[in-house]
Amino acid sequence: MAGNTFGRLFKVMTFGESHGEALGGIIDGCPPGIDLDFDAIRNEMQRRKPGQSAIVTQRKEEDEVQFLSGIFEGKTTGTPIGFVIPNTNQKSDDYSDIKDTYRPSHADYVYEKKYGIRDYRGGGRSSARETASRVVAGAIAKQVIPDIKINAFVSSVGEIFIDKPYQDLDFSLTESNPVRCPDAASAAKMEEYIRQIRKEGDTVGGTITCVIQNVPIGLGEPVFDKLHAELGKAMLSINAVKGFEYGSGFCGAKMKGSDHNDLYNPDGTTKSNLSGGIQGGISNGMDIYFRVAFKPVATLIQKQEVLDNLGNIVELQGKGRHDPCVVPRAVPIVEAMAALVIADFYLLLNNVKK
Amino acid sequence: MAGNTFGRLFKVMTFGESHGEALGGIIDGCPPGIDLDFDAIRNEMQRRKPGQSAIVTQRKEEDEVQFLSGIFEGKTTGTPIGFVIPNTNQKSDDYSDIKDTYRPSHADYVYEKKYGIRDYRGGGRSSARETASRVVAGAIAKQVIPDIKINAFVSSVGEIFIDKPYQDLDFSLTESNPVRCPDAASAAKMEEYIRQIRKEGDTVGGTITCVIQNVPIGLGEPVFDKLHAELGKAMLSINAVKGFEYGSGFCGAKMKGSDHNDLYNPDGTTKSNLSGGIQGGISNGMDIYFRVAFKPVATLIQKQEVLDNLGNIVELQGKGRHDPCVVPRAVPIVEAMAALVIADFYLLLNNVKK
Amino acid sequence: MAGNTFGRLFKVMTFGESHGEALGGIIDGCPPGIDLDFDAIRNEMQRRKPGQSAIVTQRKEEDEVQFLSGIFEGKTTGTPIGFVIPNTNQKSDDYSDIKDTYRPSHADYVYEKKYGIRDYRGGGRSSARETASRVVAGAIAKQVIPDIKINAFVSSVGEIFIDKPYQDLDFSLTESNPVRCPDAASAAKMEEYIRQIRKEGDTVGGTITCVIQNVPIGLGEPVFDKLHAELGKAMLSINAVKGFEYGSGFCGAKMKGSDHNDLYNPDGTTKSNLSGGIQGGISNGMDIYFRVAFKPVATLIQKQEVLDNLGNIVELQGKGRHDPCVVPRAVPIVEAMAALVIADFYLLLNNVKK
Amino acid sequence: MAGNTFGRLFKVMTFGESHGEALGGIIDGCPPGIDLDFDAIRNEMQRRKPGQSAIVTQRKEEDEVQFLSGIFEGKTTGTPIGFVIPNTNQKSDDYSDIKDTYRPSHADYVYEKKYGIRDYRGGGRSSARETASRVVAGAIAKQVIPDIKINAFVSSVGEIFIDKPYQDLDFSLTESNPVRCPDAASAAKMEEYIRQIRKEGDTVGGTITCVIQNVPIGLGEPVFDKLHAELGKAMLSINAVKGFEYGSGFCGAKMKGSDHNDLYNPDGTTKSNLSGGIQGGISNGMDIYFRVAFKPVATLIQKQEVLDNLGNIVELQGKGRHDPCVVPRAVPIVEAMAALVIADFYLLLNNVKK
Repeated sequence: MAGNTFGRLFKVMTFGESHGEALGGIIDGCPPGIDLDFDAIRNEMQRRKPGQSAIVTQRKEEDEVQFLSGIFEGKTTGTPIGFVIPNTNQKSDDYSDIKDTYRPSHADYVYEKKYGIRDYRGGGRSSARETASRVVAGAIAKQVIPDIKINAFVSSVGEIFIDKPYQDLDFSLTESNPVRCPDAASAAKMEEYIRQIRKEGDTVGGTITCVIQNVPIGLGEPVFDKLHAELGKAMLSINAVKGFEYGSGFCGAKMKGSDHNDLYNPDGTTKSNLSGGIQGGISNGMDIYFRVAFKPVATLIQKQEVLDNLGNIVELQGKGRHDPCVVPRAVPIVEAMAALVIADFYLLLNNVKK
Repeated sequence: MAGNTFGRLFKVMTFGESHGEALGGIIDGCPPGIDLDFDAIRNEMQRRKPGQSAIVTQRKEEDEVQFLSGIFEGKTTGTPIGFVIPNTNQKSDDYSDIKDTYRPSHADYVYEKKYGIRDYRGGGRSSARETASRVVAGAIAKQVIPDIKINAFVSSVGEIFIDKPYQDLDFSLTESNPVRCPDAASAAKMEEYIRQIRKEGDTVGGTITCVIQNVPIGLGEPVFDKLHAELGKAMLSINAVKGFEYGSGFCGAKMKGSDHNDLYNPDGTTKSNLSGGIQGGISNGMDIYFRVAFKPVATLIQKQEVLDNLGNIVELQGKGRHDPCVVPRAVPIVEAMAALVIADFYLLLNNVKK
Repeated sequence: MAGNTFGRLFKVMTFGESHGEALGGIIDGCPPGIDLDFDAIRNEMQRRKPGQSAIVTQRKEEDEVQFLSGIFEGKTTGTPIGFVIPNTNQKSDDYSDIKDTYRPSHADYVYEKKYGIRDYRGGGRSSARETASRVVAGAIAKQVIPDIKINAFVSSVGEIFIDKPYQDLDFSLTESNPVRCPDAASAAKMEEYIRQIRKEGDTVGGTITCVIQNVPIGLGEPVFDKLHAELGKAMLSINAVKGFEYGSGFCGAKMKGSDHNDLYNPDGTTKSNLSGGIQGGISNGMDIYFRVAFKPVATLIQKQEVLDNLGNIVELQGKGRHDPCVVPRAVPIVEAMAALVIADFYLLLNNVKK
Repeated sequence: MAGNTFGRLFKVMTFGESHGEALGGIIDGCPPGIDLDFDAIRNEMQRRKPGQSAIVTQRKEEDEVQFLSGIFEGKTTGTPIGFVIPNTNQKSDDYSDIKDTYRPSHADYVYEKKYGIRDYRGGGRSSARETASRVVAGAIAKQVIPDIKINAFVSSVGEIFIDKPYQDLDFSLTESNPVRCPDAASAAKMEEYIRQIRKEGDTVGGTITCVIQNVPIGLGEPVFDKLHAELGKAMLSINAVKGFEYGSGFCGAKMKGSDHNDLYNPDGTTKSNLSGGIQGGISNGMDIYFRVAFKPVATLIQKQEVLDNLGNIVELQGKGRHDPCVVPRAVPIVEAMAALVIADFYLLLNNVKK
């Protein structure tokens, strides 16, 4: 009820503050007998990790995950998988100046008001560092559904958009540049723009598109737990996300039905796919695709007005090691959350299939 | 697990097919002692009901709700509120021609594949008629949080948008026109456009904006059950919804942090509100506002190619009494789902408040 | 959260007060394609119904169940099954004298204190009439697991016990007498005793034993949701239940390990079955058996001291049509709750089976 | 869904095998601002720990709990509390001989059949070592409800019973002897008996009684989540438990209503308390008391017939360091589970209180 659990049959509970002892979580419901690929898990952690390129934060976090249970001789046993990611490089002193202040567009103020107490160091539980646990769980979820392909990529930074449909992109190029944009020309522009923003001590928003392919028909539970409703919730639960659309999305709201309907082929596939692979909340076997909007990071390396706990507006000089643009590092997080949703519905599907 | 339950402390389970005996639901967790305003409930039902104006479907559905339990001498007792909405005017024969066919961009095909059986009459469980139960539950949820004001309205139809911020609108005008758009000039254009679309036997999409005011600080449970994540899921679970954004939304993804951050006033309110009243998943007391994208209704009064269950593509002449544009009737549904989310978090808040 | 939901994959939510409009419920998660045997459902309702024999209450309740959704042409569709049992023969006037009084060992007082309001007529939600909805759901659950045999029977009334192991009983005789005791000699004594108790205007307790046979190996989810823990909760949730034991039960607590261990046969079955068919919370394929203790009905046809809402102790003459002993009518309820638990775990099992 | 989560508002998820890296868990929903008494937590761990006296297992386990999150400057923050208990003294080699065999009345066989794989070392997840995590969570739960007193004690070992009502016992004596029986004379007999049983390489069962005092009126959620139903589930989920009864329990099933009803005092308390402090599933403010039956430990220090994975019955000489009687060490576990249930309902109560 307190919001730190995700999923039903593939259930994840997470814990951890950015500057506490450790982050971690428990996965309950992972099917037994999966020969875990630990390199794949480590690789996903690397993709999310700070310091991986010149355009992301230069904080050093080791992000080594330790598995404590649920795995025997390399295989999942069906019992809960406990894991811990120690916080090894936290400089708490960096944060003494925000102990009594609430930074604009951060969660400092609302945590204080809701709980009457907060771990102010680095944002505590509200820090995006929390997503490290999601990436671990998502990396295991991917191994529950090995045939389903989940590919996310940066589709815009500020006003710079990829101007191609996803079908024209080669997802194998996503990791070839630090922006994680599979379109080389756009990637170069985005990277240049992020460097410039960073010089200004500013930040910028962006969007991530995610494509899920080779999906079985039948995932999703009407009426409240529609597949896209759960995907939407999963994405909106990621730090800094402001919007979610799938298939035709907000553009679809401008269209006529005669242009929007996806006509069938005789084999049950559809000629167009404005539906985004989901009908009535249930996957129809076509590609699922959706787009996620991220606001600009709130921490600026500039002077800003902040509120203190005495009700004064004071100036605070932003400092530290922060991301000028969050979307490159958010790509593996989007994939992880998508994997959690899909794996969960995949396990549920077994119960109604004839 | 099968998707027909919503909420945690204020929990709703619904049932019903469009052409079965009845729709209905159970509300479990409504606080005791609420002196229910039945006229208010009836009024919400009226707003959703077909046939209420010239620009919506002319189907006749009485939509009379019968309460069966949980209310004693007009007051809620804290026990579950069971309710039923009989289906009184269903013409099942209208649907015999779709018994063996799957209409484009409807859920016919996926229900058949997922369950191996479907009640094909009028879409069965996948029909938007299901939302009548949500409106009943939402109308009661509103009475759990009487001080919080929830106002939704049509903000666009096709390419016609209200070009004002919501602060410049008078919500008391929303019900003054059949489009449910509080801006008279825009409403007139939208209505004219919907009439034209209907003549063509076509349909058109639109968006609804919802504003929630007088919200206590502290609603929402990080990290997975962020307030906007639950609002997003709630909206995406409504039939025909393709997208959700709150606060700055997709526009925010184009902005710089220095423009996007909401600076504080000494009293904890903020000068701007691009955050949309939510920080870190928790309400901050400012207005919550979000926008929901609806695709055009899939049922056209035109000839269309459909798939039959033998794998043939055949022509089907759309007929019946359908909405040319769904957004006017979806306004009370958006409000109802918002009320369910807010009431649920409101009850949860009591548990952590110091 | 408010306690009116049971189960996870086969989920039931119920509503209804004894003297309200109706009882009923929703089953969410019933697998599709089950050709429902409505006679079987009706038969279970008949077994629970008042007035069925001379030793139970002579109230007349029709207990006709109406299915409102989730069934199409006689088959389950996988969508929620809504059902209603109208209250047709409620004499509310019978209860005006308890409007302001709290009967001993009833729930009147705690409902008033917890909710600040109560439907006092016939106990309202706390009435055992609520179990009618459980019987409907259980009768459908039985049809989800047709190969598993669930047989409950009265094993004691007052101090009169069947003095045979269940293996020596013929369950087909359970319905041959009004006590629902398959041992004819014991049944006769029990019936005689109940008649005598009724004459005294008194009531008496008893126990029900339930045997579940032909159970697949693997039902139950360690560690908190052990099969016997869920069975225990299910039984303890039935009105008037004071205790639950399975396998060797409380007797096992007196034994030595060398006498208690169940040694294996080469095929994995065990020579003895003091474990009661469950090891570590998981079914092992042997018979599951358990025993449930019911207290004597609290309503006496005698004068009794009661508390009124002004804090006075006053005399109340019990009247009306009440059961002198609840166990005969509770047999189908025990079976129904057992079926709900087993069906739920049965559906869950599909997710981990290799 | 996979059974490793307990509670709703005060929710606990646990992980860990007896011979894996560590045990641990996450508490989600602990109210913020509690000044944790870490000594009290350590003390509960000590009570459960092996090797604490001559009549329990002489295994050495340090059972040091490390808190990783959710606590800031000694106080709970309202965010999830992650904790780990490293496994420091596991001799896995002790268990190589049971790798391919299924011990009688253990969970070896059913885990193998259910999951297709098992961590055979020391029982893996099915080991009672798992309860260490419950004790940590329970020790924190006790601090959520400091005014409510929870006292469990050993009420029988084999055929030796305390022959006094709990009202005549001084709970402060429970820890004065290794049996944890507050009646000195009974304790001496029990201890003597356990020593003798241990010499025989045998084991013996017993019962624990738990008394909960100073309980607010209103805990418990009818109809399925009755207070005693959740207490029963909680107790039955503890390893080796075979039965649960509260108030009059199985004895009540032999009684007449005229003897069993608890008559009121003018202040709403009752003269007798056969109800066990719960009416209709809701606490009435009187003492809650219940009794839990534990079977004898299945591991004997004797030769026993076991099944191997080739279907042979072979002899196995039991060895190692095992408890001859589980109840002394189970006392803090019973209290912990009771505290989890009561704290959970206590938090829920806030939502309906007027």
